[in-house]
Amino acid sequence: MTILACDLGGTRMKIGVVRDGSVLAQTVEPANSKAGLAPQLPVLKAAWLRLLGDLKLAPRDCAGISIAFPSLIDAATGRVLAEYGKYADAMGLDLRAWAQRELGLPLAIENDARMALIGEWRAGAGRGVDNLVMMTLGTGLGTCAIIEGRVLRGKHGQAGVLGGHISVRYDGGRACSCGNVGCAEAEASTAFLAELAKTRSDFAASALAREPVLDFAAVFKHAAAGDACAVALRDHSIQVWATLAVNLIHAYDPEVVILGGGIMASAEVILPAVRAHVARHAHTPWGKVQVVASQLSDNAALVAGEWLVKERFPNL
Amino acid sequence: MTILACDLGGTRMKIGVVRDGSVLAQTVEPANSKAGLAPQLPVLKAAWLRLLGDLKLAPRDCAGISIAFPSLIDAATGRVLAEYGKYADAMGLDLRAWAQRELGLPLAIENDARMALIGEWRAGAGRGVDNLVMMTLGTGLGTCAIIEGRVLRGKHGQAGVLGGHISVRYDGGRACSCGNVGCAEAEASTAFLAELAKTRSDFAASALAREPVLDFAAVFKHAAAGDACAVALRDHSIQVWATLAVNLIHAYDPEVVILGGGIMASAEVILPAVRAHVARHAHTPWGKVQVVASQLSDNAALVAGEWLVKERFPNL
Repeated sequence: MTILACDLGGTRMKIGVVRDGSVLAQTVEPANSKAGLAPQLPVLKAAWLRLLGDLKLAPRDCAGISIAFPSLIDAATGRVLAEYGKYADAMGLDLRAWAQRELGLPLAIENDARMALIGEWRAGAGRGVDNLVMMTLGTGLGTCAIIEGRVLRGKHGQAGVLGGHISVRYDGGRACSCGNVGCAEAEASTAFLAELAKTRSDFAASALAREPVLDFAAVFKHAAAGDACAVALRDHSIQVWATLAVNLIHAYDPEVVILGGGIMASAEVILPAVRAHVARHAHTPWGKVQVVASQLSDNAALVAGEWLVKERFPNL
Repeated sequence: MTILACDLGGTRMKIGVVRDGSVLAQTVEPANSKAGLAPQLPVLKAAWLRLLGDLKLAPRDCAGISIAFPSLIDAATGRVLAEYGKYADAMGLDLRAWAQRELGLPLAIENDARMALIGEWRAGAGRGVDNLVMMTLGTGLGTCAIIEGRVLRGKHGQAGVLGGHISVRYDGGRACSCGNVGCAEAEASTAFLAELAKTRSDFAASALAREPVLDFAAVFKHAAAGDACAVALRDHSIQVWATLAVNLIHAYDPEVVILGGGIMASAEVILPAVRAHVARHAHTPWGKVQVVASQLSDNAALVAGEWLVKERFPNL
């Protein structure tokens, strides 16, 4: 089965043609998500037609379209259920009608963190396992759970994907953009890193204060060099992520925890620490949960599109 | 359908005969759970035969047996998967064979917190809703989730029932009996109440120090009278439970949160506080989660037995 896939990020759109677990062709376009999704739809269509042309294919050779979207989604109806400062118009767009009109294809849409795990499950670090969770460490903390071979969704599309908003600090926790306090995302993610750093008295004297961009790449680099503020931020963040890993294990009963996202560029430091914390603190009388790195990185949500189109349109 | 039901607690066994959502007859026997389950099996059998006799019924009038058990359970095989200081021999007992031999009936077994929610779902505070979670506030903190009409279990029977062991304090948290740190159960449950109280400098001067039994009934009583230590323990505990409620909402996407357990004798204080916290901090763009008190109290796990027997033996 060949499908057209897209992963709509805040700053870029990953666009591809996928067949049998492989990305046959792909491209990236700037997203300008603050301007909405409607202006991007012709860009998406043109990119798919160009990729198909390169492959000597046409839309009629495809089974459907898959979209990974950065919000809560009603997968059954295809509705976008909330808005988080990206593609604010999407809640009012009829993407299925657009896909039928412009490309003659059925369209399926799902939350992007859920798509990342579906991709790893079908073609990456989660192959052969039917009980798994994923944590995507980046601007925010995305999560997803698959339990006994079923993607956990819930009535309002929230189940599994709000793990980053499980509070790990019931008192004195940081106010999160979601409205909760002490969320793992508010305690350790790129979106909150500057705020976290600036509360520290040793920040002004730290090498981090002289970095043009304060991100976790900088934190891990200067921590490795012994910078005290960077070491503290690194160790604090790893403790939050490790706590989140145990919380996801206790919530969803997985055999495998997959860690992905841009911050996992420092996997050689993060993975051993999270593994040690899980081995020590997760309550799993049946055995030990494996903690592994994602394998598909940027492509997971594209590869997942094939599964999503098959799930949504089983008669194709 | 008539079934024989039992709820095996740490100190007492609730035993009943259930039909069509009602408990027709019931009794309570001391459990002495530290001595194991095997010595209790003849007590259980005799109690059921006595209750059936009072109702002019016999085992052949019943469809099966249901047991609510205080541990992780593999519901499909009926195996007890772990041991928590109660009925330590149960992992090695073949309860199904015992039930067939002694009473000629099929037996189904499930975790007791899960049974409490199943009871509320079928015949109590959760009727008519297919997305709900429960928190049982007592010696420990029991939880359970039902998502889109399916009881969440997971591969190893852990999913949904370990909500009390989601850490709400990633640093400086209390060591929990489960091996994790900062679990809601370790921060606010009857099992940890004495430890919590004694860390407070105002405990010795508090009326709580003169109570023969330090439990939450005493905490709420003295807090209402203005005792500073009791007020602090009450408010701290409510904050932990409210945080847990939001965490369960973010993990499982319910429409309703049901609060039960012995501590809910103080529902008039607990419910409004948890409701206010959930209304303010739960991220639910679709609407508002209802927070309600359980309705079946002690009988929920007995009433649930009918559903469990039907689920396990659909051909009856």
